[in-house]
Amino acid sequence: MAATSSSLSSCLLRDGGLGPESTKCYNAKQSVCGSAKSLSMPSRLIRHSMEAGSLSSTRSPARCCSAVETKASPLFTLGKKFHLDDVIEAQQFDRDTLNAIFEVAKEMEKIEKNTPGSQMLKGYLMATLFYEPSTRTRLSFESAMKRLGGEVLTTENAREFSSAAKGETLEDTIRTVEGYSDIIVLRHFESGATRRAAATASIPVINAGDGPGQHPTQALLDVYTIDREIGKLDGIKVALVGDLANGRTVRSLAYLLAKYENVKIYFVSPEVVKMKDDIKDYLTSEGVQWEESADLIDVASKCDVVYQTRIQKERFGERTDLYEEARGKYIVDSDVLNVMQKHAVVMHPLPRLDEITVDVDSDPRAAYFRQAKNGLYIRMALLKLLLVGW
Amino acid sequence: MAATSSSLSSCLLRDGGLGPESTKCYNAKQSVCGSAKSLSMPSRLIRHSMEAGSLSSTRSPARCCSAVETKASPLFTLGKKFHLDDVIEAQQFDRDTLNAIFEVAKEMEKIEKNTPGSQMLKGYLMATLFYEPSTRTRLSFESAMKRLGGEVLTTENAREFSSAAKGETLEDTIRTVEGYSDIIVLRHFESGATRRAAATASIPVINAGDGPGQHPTQALLDVYTIDREIGKLDGIKVALVGDLANGRTVRSLAYLLAKYENVKIYFVSPEVVKMKDDIKDYLTSEGVQWEESADLIDVASKCDVVYQTRIQKERFGERTDLYEEARGKYIVDSDVLNVMQKHAVVMHPLPRLDEITVDVDSDPRAAYFRQAKNGLYIRMALLKLLLVGW
Amino acid sequence: MAATSSSLSSCLLRDGGLGPESTKCYNAKQSVCGSAKSLSMPSRLIRHSMEAGSLSSTRSPARCCSAVETKASPLFTLGKKFHLDDVIEAQQFDRDTLNAIFEVAKEMEKIEKNTPGSQMLKGYLMATLFYEPSTRTRLSFESAMKRLGGEVLTTENAREFSSAAKGETLEDTIRTVEGYSDIIVLRHFESGATRRAAATASIPVINAGDGPGQHPTQALLDVYTIDREIGKLDGIKVALVGDLANGRTVRSLAYLLAKYENVKIYFVSPEVVKMKDDIKDYLTSEGVQWEESADLIDVASKCDVVYQTRIQKERFGERTDLYEEARGKYIVDSDVLNVMQKHAVVMHPLPRLDEITVDVDSDPRAAYFRQAKNGLYIRMALLKLLLVGW
Repeated sequence: MAATSSSLSSCLLRDGGLGPESTKCYNAKQSVCGSAKSLSMPSRLIRHSMEAGSLSSTRSPARCCSAVETKASPLFTLGKKFHLDDVIEAQQFDRDTLNAIFEVAKEMEKIEKNTPGSQMLKGYLMATLFYEPSTRTRLSFESAMKRLGGEVLTTENAREFSSAAKGETLEDTIRTVEGYSDIIVLRHFESGATRRAAATASIPVINAGDGPGQHPTQALLDVYTIDREIGKLDGIKVALVGDLANGRTVRSLAYLLAKYENVKIYFVSPEVVKMKDDIKDYLTSEGVQWEESADLIDVASKCDVVYQTRIQKERFGERTDLYEEARGKYIVDSDVLNVMQKHAVVMHPLPRLDEITVDVDSDPRAAYFRQAKNGLYIRMALLKLLLVGW
Repeated sequence: MAATSSSLSSCLLRDGGLGPESTKCYNAKQSVCGSAKSLSMPSRLIRHSMEAGSLSSTRSPARCCSAVETKASPLFTLGKKFHLDDVIEAQQFDRDTLNAIFEVAKEMEKIEKNTPGSQMLKGYLMATLFYEPSTRTRLSFESAMKRLGGEVLTTENAREFSSAAKGETLEDTIRTVEGYSDIIVLRHFESGATRRAAATASIPVINAGDGPGQHPTQALLDVYTIDREIGKLDGIKVALVGDLANGRTVRSLAYLLAKYENVKIYFVSPEVVKMKDDIKDYLTSEGVQWEESADLIDVASKCDVVYQTRIQKERFGERTDLYEEARGKYIVDSDVLNVMQKHAVVMHPLPRLDEITVDVDSDPRAAYFRQAKNGLYIRMALLKLLLVGW
Repeated sequence: MAATSSSLSSCLLRDGGLGPESTKCYNAKQSVCGSAKSLSMPSRLIRHSMEAGSLSSTRSPARCCSAVETKASPLFTLGKKFHLDDVIEAQQFDRDTLNAIFEVAKEMEKIEKNTPGSQMLKGYLMATLFYEPSTRTRLSFESAMKRLGGEVLTTENAREFSSAAKGETLEDTIRTVEGYSDIIVLRHFESGATRRAAATASIPVINAGDGPGQHPTQALLDVYTIDREIGKLDGIKVALVGDLANGRTVRSLAYLLAKYENVKIYFVSPEVVKMKDDIKDYLTSEGVQWEESADLIDVASKCDVVYQTRIQKERFGERTDLYEEARGKYIVDSDVLNVMQKHAVVMHPLPRLDEITVDVDSDPRAAYFRQAKNGLYIRMALLKLLLVGW
């Protein structure tokens, strides 16, 4: 297990799956502190010239890197290096990459205090640049960094960052912050912000949620949790419950589940917040079985995972009547637990209000706090992979 | 001196003193990160079953643990372990526990940079979860943790914590944060919040002030400061001056002083903010002498400690006339100093406005900044005791 | 290179240059944590007695310390110690001190992860006390401290510090915080706040900007950047462009440039924000050539450095018409680049809006992000000098 990443990084990104705007080829990038030299020639230009050269256009929905062609062969054979540049969106990960990340995450679970493993990232500095507050996510990343011996520069609310308030562009902020740190964890209120940041930065950038867009580390920890709890990802049945229209969590999860074989997905949601057609069409095109149902009890009795989500009041505006109607419709309670199989689990991205009743918490099948903890291991794994490599 | 706490912890809590609702038996609790297993069976349930079993009811005002019976014998004899689970309220500490904490605090004063002692908590992670800002207290805890080699996850204002804003319960937040850290320092705006948090968490919780309720580490550092400055706690005379009705500081201090022999307390306060009867009755019932006086000069000449407090404007609402009348009434200035004994000291929980004049600062008897510094040692001691044990 | 500073510190401050109110003699001060003893006799009193004794009055514009007389001889001869107590204002530094700081900063550029150098400040604790947010500056200081192995207590917005909100004086806050840390980095909204803090504290204080007053570390990093980019400071030509009336950056830079030989300064600014007479008079008195010009292209073709600044909207109040007129007047774009010499550079204190067009960024002569990075090295150097000495 090499401690440093290959300088000749290969692009693992394949078919992003969702059409032209979501495919992107992740090219080689220096993974440690940009030198003065690299600053005088922005990495975005270096990339541009590479893209224009040996690589196919990023606009093409086709596979964009030659490395992709090796998909069929085992990924981590001797001498082959796995390299991750940035974490931008769930679609960026293929099945092999997911497996690799999960393997590292499992190692992370075993790291104990004051062992060499707990000092793996000693000397590295992570900047958490949060343009909107998200204490849960921020603490999870910061804990991950510190559990590996790394250090943190923290910003609870960078939106009030005087420079942003004065009109500085995100790109300029990133170029300043990359001079102070080795990796940037970005939370932003605008969709696509992380992609822009990653295009500018000469150090790795992780998307910790960008507006209505992506929250890829949440998607990763969800799939990881299913793997840890159920023991497999192929052949599983998953109920997605609650707000399926607005929740980026369930949308990302659906994308990732489509990478596994023989998965069946049930959508259980109030009429006003039904899963949108783009996801349904995508699942169909990928050969994933899905079904809509209004009967949570029936669905719960069949599934390995009941993934509950919060109905987001803020999406209903002044229509609080619609909100009240929607929120009470599908509650996971002891009745649901009673029909669930012994090995099945209840998951939730948190925070929860009353869509899972508190009496469910003490059942071993209530996996949501373990799920939150898995976020720590996934983030430890990503930080390790981005900073010191596979 | 064992580096790890006994797994068979004994409950040191005795009669809390203030009736049924303040007594509580602190039971065994895992001191490091809850495993997935413990999460699937909440510690609150584990405790409940224990309480129903071998231990007497927590509702009984009687001594609740057998360990209490050993009070007369020396506490730290060979082979006996001292174990602290949480720091919730001043009443939780008996005289022996206070002595033990002070002994550790004195050791903390001697710790120097880059010695093994300064790395005592290396690998441990403290989360400061502050639902209302209190920079002084937060920095004191964070400094304490870092002076012992520990690391910190910080939250300056968790009330804006997006999850809390979205309606997440404190209990759910605690269950998430306990997955990221080894100890939680909680500041909350609601009385009793720490008790609820401690009942949920599988890791230690320290109360850093919960609304009008408790601020036990302040009470501990006050008593520690008297011990350090005067050299004893039995037989001392203490003047409590200023806002005695609203200040939780002076109320907690009165409780703790009652644990010592032959203490005399003087109350000196404007009529509108007099000490309430519950404390007076408690002191009387504990055999503590107390007296109200309107003559600060006379009282100051007799006392070992003049404990001044700020008249809190926010308690007067629109009656600024009453506030103005109250605040100017008892000022500690050079006239007060002149009558004080040579060995006596002036204390103040800080911040001070003009209730102690600035010219007092340069007198060696002005102990308030030393008192603030003692807060560091007390918090270092508590963190040590909670994380690695006696 | 001694690891600890001399206990017999010498005062390096000479003629502050700008008349009585700016001269100050920096006396000996304990550099590590005030003991309880020192707290009982405030350092301000110790200083006062020293000033009244062996040292001349701080009110005198004349050289105030005998050590100053050694100016002509080399500063760092064997056995001589260089000691810095606080960083308060740009005028505090003479040419020798600047050279010394720059020499240390250059060493800082070479420090690599996990080398002994990167642990130089292990065990030291820096408190960043920011009364107004300035994420850029805060992260730069915190990164500097952590790159040297030190730890940080952070305050993003101390103005909401409950104590300050309750009316606590800055002095009282400082006396509390000095008990928790080894060095204080202060950002304040009031001019002179750092000087007051330094007069109170028994630990070093660094000014990270105090209102319209000073921002000395910015001035240092500007001069350092010129030295690094151009290779010299004597005989250079510098254009100061943009808001010269309100920008403390350009004012401080002008002061510092006056310490070098044969410097020529060009002022290029809209009429409403012209450089004020005090600076012009000062430059004249120091024998520095300066010239006002309205022709940026002409000036840019002659200069080694084009130092662009942002027109600060907030200074114009309701006169947005004047603001709009001023902001578009002098833009650094490809036309300006085209006339600039090959070795010349464009600098900017950041954040920039559109006063430098984005297409300039990719030119090697765009030095502003390197300049921001240099802030890291300068702050590392200052922390090292203040905490462990030369």
